[in-house]
Parts: sequence; structure tokens; C-alpha cells
Amino acid sequence: MKEIVAIIRSNKVNVTKAALDSIGYPGMTGFAVLGRGKQRGIAGECGFSIASEVLAKAQTAGMKFIPKRLLIVVVADEDVDRVVSAIVSVNQTNQIGDGRIFVCPVEEAVRVRTGETGDKAIL
Amino acid sequence: MKEIVAIIRSNKVNVTKAALDSIGYPGMTGFAVLGRGKQRGIAGECGFSIASEVLAKAQTAGMKFIPKRLLIVVVADEDVDRVVSAIVSVNQTNQIGDGRIFVCPVEEAVRVRTGETGDKAIL
Amino acid sequence: MKEIVAIIRSNKVNVTKAALDSIGYPGMTGFAVLGRGKQRGIAGECGFSIASEVLAKAQTAGMKFIPKRLLIVVVADEDVDRVVSAIVSVNQTNQIGDGRIFVCPVEEAVRVRTGETGDKAIL
Repeated sequence: MKEIVAIIRSNKVNVTKAALDSIGYPGMTGFAVLGRGKQRGIAGECGFSIASEVLAKAQTAGMKFIPKRLLIVVVADEDVDRVVSAIVSVNQTNQIGDGRIFVCPVEEAVRVRTGETGDKAIL
Repeated sequence: MKEIVAIIRSNKVNVTKAALDSIGYPGMTGFAVLGRGKQRGIAGECGFSIASEVLAKAQTAGMKFIPKRLLIVVVADEDVDRVVSAIVSVNQTNQIGDGRIFVCPVEEAVRVRTGETGDKAIL
Repeated sequence: MKEIVAIIRSNKVNVTKAALDSIGYPGMTGFAVLGRGKQRGIAGECGFSIASEVLAKAQTAGMKFIPKRLLIVVVADEDVDRVVSAIVSVNQTNQIGDGRIFVCPVEEAVRVRTGETGDKAIL
């Protein structure tokens, strides 16, 4: 099992949810986060390149982070590639700020209600 | 060390906190999340089964997620089973929506104040 | 790649952000959490030691958790030590409640906009 952590634009949650549902993963967990990438947030939602002096100033001025959503979905090993592809396909706008996806190991999963473990607990 | 991630009902936080405290883990971190499982949230808090047509409609209608709490507790390897059991025992209602638990590897822990690492940092 | 999870004081976010930026990690993700350590929150922000009877009472009274911030930064393997050191150096107050840092494995990273993977996706 793997944990797919996707940090995406807030307005992409619904299409991402639908995309994951359509490939067999209706279940997921999400919450609001603040984040920024190497542009330090200042170009987060606009998509043009920034002069390095402006970046430097933004840094020292304690630039605010951009609101994002973090989605967690735990999937079977063999589904990692298509889940990642599904998330990428609906989140690419080609503008800075599309977010990132991380794949992390999960050693065990338990469905609390039934006590089921392993892949049975995540489907 | 392992990270135990428990996604549980909001009204089960206090009993879970007490259960973990009683087995030697008073320390933990929690926050509010939104989640759903394979029922897509519509039966999340009521516990009866749903016709597949209704599920299909709920999906296309962009069904809302259910508020949950996510708790993180990092434990020594040998404590994983009893921590998971403790969480399950106080969270099972036998109704859909009891949540899930994931066990993930942690390679290092540091207590910021003292710089202690490893198991010393988590107890 | 490793995920560095830092649970720190809310008023330490800006200095932590600056410290990470200065060593080449301007990008990160953060959110508000509630947490407590082995003192069960009651000494979280004051820094004196607590009698065990008081601790026992606090536990049974369902002591509230302390607001903290959780920061996530994914770094290259070779940068783990200096990132952890940088976080520790600006967060140590020598008072209880300075927080913890966990290092977790990450198997893959994807920059959504470009599809870049691996270390290219995190820098």
C-alpha cells in the first residue's frame, strides 16, 4: 500500500475527487493547508515569471503562503501510477502553483468498523 | 518507530485520547479533516445500506465529505499493535463511518527542546 | 527523498520559514494542529515542572491540547541533517512545548505542472 499525498489548488478538489472516484477510489481525506513552492508564493496564482530581486524582497518581507488543499488517498501498490496520473491530468493548468504529489510507504491499514487489514481495508 | 494515523469520528477524540494516555502515549497531534470512504459519505453517520443508484447520484452530485478528526501518534515499533488495538476498541460503533488507521514508517524523531532522537524523542 | 514533519510553536513559523529558505528550501506546506507531549499540554507554554498529582488530574479532566503548527518539507536525502538542524536551531526555547520533528520516507515526488519527478520535483 502507498499513501498518495496531493497538494493541489483549492478549486481543483471536486474534479480530483471525481477523477479518483472514476478509477475506483471514492474514499479519501482532505484538509486546507498553506503552501508555497520555489517561487515563494508570489506567483502562485498568476503564472508569470518573477525577477530575482523581487523574489529576494518577497522572501525578506515574509511572503504569505497560498491556500491549497491536501488530499490523502491510500492505494494498492499496483494502482499508484494510475492514481498519480489521474491527479496530474485534472490538475495541470501549466501555471505556477499546480502543486505536488508525494508517494509514501504505508505498512498497514485497518478499517476500524470491521477490523479488516491490508488491501481489504482501503477498498 | 512508526507513525499511527487514525482518521476517526470527531466525537471519539476524547475517548481515543484517554485510551492512548492509559497505555503510555499521552502525546499526540490532531486536526480536523474531511473524509469519506467507499460509501462516498452519504451513509457516513447513519449506518444503513444505500442503493447503488443513490450512490451513483450522490457521486455525480459532488457529495460533500464528512468532518472527521485525524490523529497522529508516533510510537515505538513494539507498541504498534497495542496502540492500534486501543484505537479500534474505543472507535468501533459497527456503523459505517468509524474510520481507518494507517501505519507508516518513521526513520527518525527529534525532540526540539533537548535534541534527543529516536525512541527517547517520542516517549 | 525524505519528508520532514515539524510540529512547532505557532509563533515560530516565520523564523522557521526564513531558516529553511536560507538553506535552499523556500517551498513547504503548513497547517494548524492541536498537540500535546508527555506533559499533556498543561505545561505547554510556561516551562515549569508539574507535580504528578496535577498531571494525573489534568489527564482525567480531559486537558485541552495546545495549538501548534505542522510544517511539511520534502528534501533530498543528503539534506535531511541540515534541514533538521536548521529547524531545531530556531525553535529551541528550552521550555517545554518546543515540539518535535519526524523524518519519514518518500518514494516519489511529482511536480504537477511539469510532470517532473524525483529530486527535480522538490527543488
